[in-house]
Amino acid sequence: MNYQYEQAVEILRRTPATLTALLRGLPEAWTKATEGPDTWSAYDIVGHLLHSDEVNWIERARVILEQDEQRPFDSFNRTAMFEKYQGSSLDQLLVAFEQERAKNLATLSELQITPEKLALKGTHPALGTVTLSQLLATWVAHDLNHIGQIVEVMARQYAEAVGPWKANLAILTRPILTE
Amino acid sequence: MNYQYEQAVEILRRTPATLTALLRGLPEAWTKATEGPDTWSAYDIVGHLLHSDEVNWIERARVILEQDEQRPFDSFNRTAMFEKYQGSSLDQLLVAFEQERAKNLATLSELQITPEKLALKGTHPALGTVTLSQLLATWVAHDLNHIGQIVEVMARQYAEAVGPWKANLAILTRPILTE
Repeated sequence: MNYQYEQAVEILRRTPATLTALLRGLPEAWTKATEGPDTWSAYDIVGHLLHSDEVNWIERARVILEQDEQRPFDSFNRTAMFEKYQGSSLDQLLVAFEQERAKNLATLSELQITPEKLALKGTHPALGTVTLSQLLATWVAHDLNHIGQIVEVMARQYAEAVGPWKANLAILTRPILTE
Repeated sequence: MNYQYEQAVEILRRTPATLTALLRGLPEAWTKATEGPDTWSAYDIVGHLLHSDEVNWIERARVILEQDEQRPFDSFNRTAMFEKYQGSSLDQLLVAFEQERAKNLATLSELQITPEKLALKGTHPALGTVTLSQLLATWVAHDLNHIGQIVEVMARQYAEAVGPWKANLAILTRPILTE
């Protein structure tokens, strides 16, 4: 499936409500649980999505649209949420993410993405040359990846509680999702 | 984490709203897409969840509570949705799932699950002896597994569109989720 602006936005604008439906008011036994050291809880992942929306996607799109191909994107700190949102509740992060996403989609709309613009290029600090189309498709896949990571870390809290059914539930046994 | 009735119900009652937030009104390019032959679309997976709620979880809980340990559970047809809901729209399936889940959680509440009841045993046709606690924990993990499967099949539609970012998104490259 090729990237298409309208189809992509349909996913992006649903992510905050999906996370709110899944997580709001859920006991911390679910939302603060990790899979061990250096793994993220649902709470951490919502913070990561919020931080990504605050500093990453639109900023990189602007760099590409300014046709500043020689300037690599700023590198992205994927663990910034641990300090940045310390003391924030999950509900606060969910509300902030909903607001930030709405603002970013309004900005994206103002940027008037055309097929010509989608072909413009930028330079990722590690991955090299990328197009605006690839950046915007990654925004979508990144949302879905992290929704998947949230349900996975929560499911794994029951890895033993399910008893012999563990063998039938791939989410409990395969290598864990990270960024 | 051990199975606890109240914690488990908190997940079960959020699943229909989560799926509705994620999928309602989404273009069929997302909801009907699979990962190839013998894999399921988001639409198929919602049907599977609905069918599971209609025939599986509460029925098996009843068999255990009737202490009919010698009688194996009826086997569950995990692909029944392909015929059963033919012609139903995704929106119809989402509404039906929401209603069926609400009914099942009311029934579960009436069954008054105590620690003593959670230890009661049944016989799975393939897995052998299981407890009510394991069955009810599996209901939760099964929900989360299939939410994960839905975001995975949708994300993979962009496996090529993301370009070099594919290397950073585990959801695009690891073995696919099934039941």
